[in-house]
Amino acid sequence: MIPDGILVLMGPIEVEELATRIRAGSVRALARGLSWIEAGGERAEALSEELYPDTRGAHVVGVTGAPGAGKSTLVGALAREARQRGASVGVLTVDPSSPFTGGAILGDRIRMNDLANDPGVFIRSMATRGAMGGLCAAAGAAVDLLSAARRDLVVLETVGVGQDEVDVMRLAHSTVVVSVRGLGDDSQALKAGIIEIADIHVVNKADREGADRTLAELRSLLAMDRGSSGAWRPPILRSVATRQEGVSALLDAIDQHFKDLKTSGQLHARERRIAQSRVLQHAQTLVAQTLKQPIARDDDAVEAQIDRVARRELSPYRCARALLRRASAGERTPFHV
Amino acid sequence: MIPDGILVLMGPIEVEELATRIRAGSVRALARGLSWIEAGGERAEALSEELYPDTRGAHVVGVTGAPGAGKSTLVGALAREARQRGASVGVLTVDPSSPFTGGAILGDRIRMNDLANDPGVFIRSMATRGAMGGLCAAAGAAVDLLSAARRDLVVLETVGVGQDEVDVMRLAHSTVVVSVRGLGDDSQALKAGIIEIADIHVVNKADREGADRTLAELRSLLAMDRGSSGAWRPPILRSVATRQEGVSALLDAIDQHFKDLKTSGQLHARERRIAQSRVLQHAQTLVAQTLKQPIARDDDAVEAQIDRVARRELSPYRCARALLRRASAGERTPFHV
Repeated sequence: MIPDGILVLMGPIEVEELATRIRAGSVRALARGLSWIEAGGERAEALSEELYPDTRGAHVVGVTGAPGAGKSTLVGALAREARQRGASVGVLTVDPSSPFTGGAILGDRIRMNDLANDPGVFIRSMATRGAMGGLCAAAGAAVDLLSAARRDLVVLETVGVGQDEVDVMRLAHSTVVVSVRGLGDDSQALKAGIIEIADIHVVNKADREGADRTLAELRSLLAMDRGSSGAWRPPILRSVATRQEGVSALLDAIDQHFKDLKTSGQLHARERRIAQSRVLQHAQTLVAQTLKQPIARDDDAVEAQIDRVARRELSPYRCARALLRRASAGERTPFHV
Repeated sequence: MIPDGILVLMGPIEVEELATRIRAGSVRALARGLSWIEAGGERAEALSEELYPDTRGAHVVGVTGAPGAGKSTLVGALAREARQRGASVGVLTVDPSSPFTGGAILGDRIRMNDLANDPGVFIRSMATRGAMGGLCAAAGAAVDLLSAARRDLVVLETVGVGQDEVDVMRLAHSTVVVSVRGLGDDSQALKAGIIEIADIHVVNKADREGADRTLAELRSLLAMDRGSSGAWRPPILRSVATRQEGVSALLDAIDQHFKDLKTSGQLHARERRIAQSRVLQHAQTLVAQTLKQPIARDDDAVEAQIDRVARRELSPYRCARALLRRASAGERTPFHV
């Protein structure tokens, strides 16, 4: 373990050096690396590239559900339970709808305050949609960093539920969907999307009125969902996260799902799906960046082509293909796969 | 005008021939072309490419707003008013959340039934999200076809409100946001997104209780929004679409906005913004297609690379750039811009 104090005294830090410190477990280096990822660009990509081979081993768990379901309290409770079992934990809270719900993230942080002094728990929030629209790509890179920093359990939490959140959940090995009474409030479409991605269901605030009805609703919804692949049947658990109730059973189910993925041979399929999401999200972010932030040395070129499309001199189709060629070349020397 | 009867007797139809018939105003050819667009692929792109130079002239008007605001009744009323003024009309209803709200679209069609026998009004629904995630790209191409078919007014209607709908609205010259009492039901983020895209506000069902409060809410929201570009101040109108009330004033405002875009020199800026959206959406659709539907002759290549990413032998970044190169080449002979 490299003493973190050294890092603050340093000047500009190189990619390889930061990667070495992250691998060695430095919390400061990890924090710095995540700031690079949030800022994006060449440096972020170089760091991710450097660390990618070391990202195996961590169990990436997504936690999603409607606002007010008590997700962050539950994530805090899970982190505590995992720590008691000797695992190191990384928590990444992702909020695609920010800055509008910035308050919620701040609230989450405060609720997990008792974990703040434990170096075995690393908590970070991300909300960078405004920058590039590449929040999913950034979240993927952040998960890589936490994995390369040898966190045994990486929890990826979303603030709300929606298409962006479903995309974020595609980065996880195991997805926990947190419900609370009143499932009926969400639209049918949302329900269907959630049922589709859930590996484990948990009804939180299970001591409150209506929890039993929610459990029954979930059971009947899952009973209809017969076509899912593999032998795993998503369990439906109950918890009272504020009192740490049901959290041990939830972590058991999470562990069991990971074991099941391994023994059934489904883990590689899941990792392929994650890889596919990562590649697609990164490619689409590159395209958006190329269009919106043209390279300095010939920025007129992209603008001029868009102008020609607006004047009907060039079709969007030809222009799109030219844009893709441009995005594939990137800012650095092109490499060949 | 080519008699439509001829078309149904024909065998396979070529791109150029169909384009010629669409330009000549054949409703059947237009319907067939839109089916090509919905199906996607090489043929759709070739048709769009062929017609793109002829897409000038139409006024593309987006209509969005929360479900239940009476958008489709209002769109029907607008179409009637525009017909009375001698304009030809195309209506495209876009539903990114389908198939879940398929019933709503059917309902919309029925409500506009009295327009069905007027060849001067062409109505079509699109809901192809499931196919490729390229609904915006397809909607853009459909608008092109309606424009090339010399529809003076092309109305692009969305079923709900959300990020997808905002993206669709970026294809329009003028955006009408339809509200109904109870603005407060939507989230702050949604409100902000809507305020940002509206060129014209209309409170529909203005004869109902609460309409005045909605008008007041809109006025105070708009009063805060001082930073918008250009001299245009979005008017706030009221309508009762079921009784054709306020619809003439709405069409006047829509015409006025288009005139204002032209005289202020903002039209080209707007068309550039539309072009940028088109190019980005098409590029991202190409990327997704390349990833998900690999080309038959070497489909193993993409799959094998994703496999290497899953095994940490290749980073998502390198793979993404390779994917972009692949997507830029496309299925047809590469062309150089």
